[in-house]
Amino acid sequence: MKECRKTMTKLAEQIFSGDRRAVAKMITAVENNPEGVLKEMESIYRRTGSAYRIGVTGPSGSGKSTLVDSLALKLREKGLTVGIIAIDPTSPFTGGALLGDRIRMQHIGLDPGVFIRSMATRGSMGGLCAAAGDAADILDASGKDVVITETVGVGQSEVAIASVAYTTLVVLSPEAGDAVQTLKAGLMEIADIFVINKCDRDGAQRLSADVLSMLELKTFDEGTWRPLVVETSATKGTGIEDLGEAIQQHRAYLEQEGRLHGKRLTAAVKKIQDLVVSHLEREAESGAGTDALRKLGEKVLGGKLTPQAAACKVLDNLRKRKQSKS
Amino acid sequence: MKECRKTMTKLAEQIFSGDRRAVAKMITAVENNPEGVLKEMESIYRRTGSAYRIGVTGPSGSGKSTLVDSLALKLREKGLTVGIIAIDPTSPFTGGALLGDRIRMQHIGLDPGVFIRSMATRGSMGGLCAAAGDAADILDASGKDVVITETVGVGQSEVAIASVAYTTLVVLSPEAGDAVQTLKAGLMEIADIFVINKCDRDGAQRLSADVLSMLELKTFDEGTWRPLVVETSATKGTGIEDLGEAIQQHRAYLEQEGRLHGKRLTAAVKKIQDLVVSHLEREAESGAGTDALRKLGEKVLGGKLTPQAAACKVLDNLRKRKQSKS
Repeated sequence: MKECRKTMTKLAEQIFSGDRRAVAKMITAVENNPEGVLKEMESIYRRTGSAYRIGVTGPSGSGKSTLVDSLALKLREKGLTVGIIAIDPTSPFTGGALLGDRIRMQHIGLDPGVFIRSMATRGSMGGLCAAAGDAADILDASGKDVVITETVGVGQSEVAIASVAYTTLVVLSPEAGDAVQTLKAGLMEIADIFVINKCDRDGAQRLSADVLSMLELKTFDEGTWRPLVVETSATKGTGIEDLGEAIQQHRAYLEQEGRLHGKRLTAAVKKIQDLVVSHLEREAESGAGTDALRKLGEKVLGGKLTPQAAACKVLDNLRKRKQSKS
Repeated sequence: MKECRKTMTKLAEQIFSGDRRAVAKMITAVENNPEGVLKEMESIYRRTGSAYRIGVTGPSGSGKSTLVDSLALKLREKGLTVGIIAIDPTSPFTGGALLGDRIRMQHIGLDPGVFIRSMATRGSMGGLCAAAGDAADILDASGKDVVITETVGVGQSEVAIASVAYTTLVVLSPEAGDAVQTLKAGLMEIADIFVINKCDRDGAQRLSADVLSMLELKTFDEGTWRPLVVETSATKGTGIEDLGEAIQQHRAYLEQEGRLHGKRLTAAVKKIQDLVVSHLEREAESGAGTDALRKLGEKVLGGKLTPQAAACKVLDNLRKRKQSKS
């Protein structure tokens, strides 16, 4: 155990020097055993704050991954290093995140200035949120100039992961669902920039016009950001320069009047919450192992206990464990 | 408060007699204030167990809603009453669930033998899981013969909601993403029946063949269920009869050798877990109001505190509150 701690502290130092393998190892550690590396994550967090954080979200099929890859290439051309975290909450079973990694490696994975990591839901959503936040901190502390967090924007938590970035891109494409679906996606409110991807396909102009007219219907207070709309074709590389400029514009806006501080405060609060929720979730799991739960479940089915009473029993056990620990 | 309790108990009785307004009211109560109706939900749970529970999931755009409506119509023709819960976790902001309700009302919403309710993510995912489970219990206790829970199958939690049903349908369509996406969706493992919807469109035959060959690659132990593949066109009503027969076939399979008991045990365990997690999430929220969190966030940004130390403070406060309460 002590041995392990020593290794981890050495790992933190290697991360600060930008060591790729150390970065990968630490991300694995926060995925598998976050409680075991709390101290290391504290020292890593202290080294964060220099990376610009971009969130990318949007419906599945809108071409987010390709767009992120193109954006990363563009940033590399400008001499910036890039860390990418691709969150794949759609993959509780099949390890889709790994598949994603392998496909993407072909494009930019060989560039030492780019670090890509996919993360999938293994346990709880709360755990994934916390791990994704930690991974962004690790990449930040490792010296990456830009950290991009990409999620499929469908659930509230996934949207939350992207929206704690400084600049949030919402990627839409004509094929990824009709207007109603887009409205339903609840993505309108978090976008700093709308990216109309696959802009050379049928319906792209229509989608672009729809988004613009929705924005016109909204009233924006003076001094608030009015989302930009950028058309891209990530596969052809069209519009990526414009997208880069739009991000710069939003960044310049944030850097006025302490707005960036506001964004960073939101992110810090979210980080605290994620850590609390994922800790509570782990407690809930360990406080009632599968066997104990199955026994309670049998009692519920037998009519001897209601699920509500069973839940109270589990919670009581958790409390007792806590008190005896402290 | 006492007045309110009385009203709620009366409500439970009205639910047992099948009163629609009472059903709607109780579902609203479990969404908004689940702790306030724990006692009522205990008595409601005691009346459950007679409804057959079907879960429907699949990627957004595969035509789940229309399919569920067609299936409900078919069940009505056979004289069965139907409760439908449509989970829309994609809608944290815009109230898309309501929109969904309004569109669907045109089809089957006027039939008194059908009850449809949409639920969206307002607070946490844990809260939604628990509320969706409660809503299914309410519909079961109200005397519905079949309860269908429909979710967008993207996140693990959404998949979990559907998979505690006795029979789980995974709905795919040629347009809703390519083969890789389908693989990534992690839906393969939970399907009792694959529904290839929009079967008259281009690529449907291909998709059907892909799913069949994936199933052929898998080895199934003797006595385990080999998922069926059914082609439908929900908008035209094609294949719905076949789908009904496939569900019957799976039901007959479950009713052998205590398999249904196993499914119901899984559901009971999931229900206990959902109640525990949603309770803990609520505690985490109330234990650290936004103001207190913002103050901690400022300290984190100022370098006076790490997020990990801030999270510990929040957890300590929660524990103190608990002990002083008990």
